Amino acid sequence: MTPNAIDRLVTLLSKLPGVGKKSASRMAYHILDGSSAYAHALADELAALHQLIRRCGICGAFTETDPCPICADTGRDHSLICVVERAQDLRIIEESHEFNGVFHVLGGLIAPLEGVGPGNLAIGKLAARVREHQVREIILALNPTVEGDTTALYLQKTLKEFPVEVSRLASGLPVGGDLEYTDRLTLSRSFRGRVKV
Amino acid sequence: MTPNAIDRLVTLLSKLPGVGKKSASRMAYHILDGSSAYAHALADELAALHQLIRRCGICGAFTETDPCPICADTGRDHSLICVVERAQDLRIIEESHEFNGVFHVLGGLIAPLEGVGPGNLAIGKLAARVREHQVREIILALNPTVEGDTTALYLQKTLKEFPVEVSRLASGLPVGGDLEYTDRLTLSRSFRGRVKV
Repeated sequence: MTPNAIDRLVTLLSKLPGVGKKSASRMAYHILDGSSAYAHALADELAALHQLIRRCGICGAFTETDPCPICADTGRDHSLICVVERAQDLRIIEESHEFNGVFHVLGGLIAPLEGVGPGNLAIGKLAARVREHQVREIILALNPTVEGDTTALYLQKTLKEFPVEVSRLASGLPVGGDLEYTDRLTLSRSFRGRVKV
Repeated sequence: MTPNAIDRLVTLLSKLPGVGKKSASRMAYHILDGSSAYAHALADELAALHQLIRRCGICGAFTETDPCPICADTGRDHSLICVVERAQDLRIIEESHEFNGVFHVLGGLIAPLEGVGPGNLAIGKLAARVREHQVREIILALNPTVEGDTTALYLQKTLKEFPVEVSRLASGLPVGGDLEYTDRLTLSRSFRGRVKV
């Protein structure tokens, strides 16, 4: 007995990540209870999204201009490339203000069980960037997971033929974490990666 | 350095209930990674929502037709009115298939601290329905909270002048719940409302 328009909206909203049927329903009624201006603003942004946003031809980041503002910025260190899995990983790294180089988006990680091989990722493009430009160091900012490790290993081998240093983000105890609640693998990595104080 | 179109979408999405900046960002990138067809479908539903959905002139439910399908259904018991706080409460009651009467949406609960008095709710309209039609019983399906209790008490007094029975949904231990984790108030209510077996 729910109106069809609400049902259709709930069905669409529940396809968003982390949104179940109940949250989708809450959202739909919230939008309905609210102003139609908000609903229209959201509708306009969604309708224009894929038209406004494209992939940067150099690094693969989401951008409104091609090349993206980071690749076009001459103030950044273009000899230092940070490799990330997905375009959205750029945001968190940019927000940390730790990095002043440029990026390269792989578009995934090597995962044979899911049918993702090196050929599905922007690895050839990364090799081309290293070959054609003066790249000093490549920092792999990949998740410390099996897929991340596999991909890091593959990239390390692939890039061996170039005079470029390949490093990976340190893995270990998170700041503010508790030894008691740390899993064995993380603990083992933090032992192996221990630093002199 | 995030493209503006994504930032704007994230800002709008983070206004949804239960959605913080991080989830909003995840959703935005999910939509961006997905097909533009999905984004357009969602945009279309949002843009049309407030135009398609109105309030039922009788009960106040969200509906595409006025009166709503429930109020227009002659197969339902129109002498039995279930009073709910919000239009979205209808869905859960309808899904339980426990109730074959009609509804009345109050549009809130009496909450003096938030400036919501009886005059802000559809109480006069409820009294008018009782006055003008043969209403046998009114079931108050209001949350067992301070505001729900206050509103129930107020409605009970207001409806005293009419020859109508006023009842309220039972409050007590939830099915599948555990005595050990039940709060004192719920336990006290379930004692007072105990039923013979």
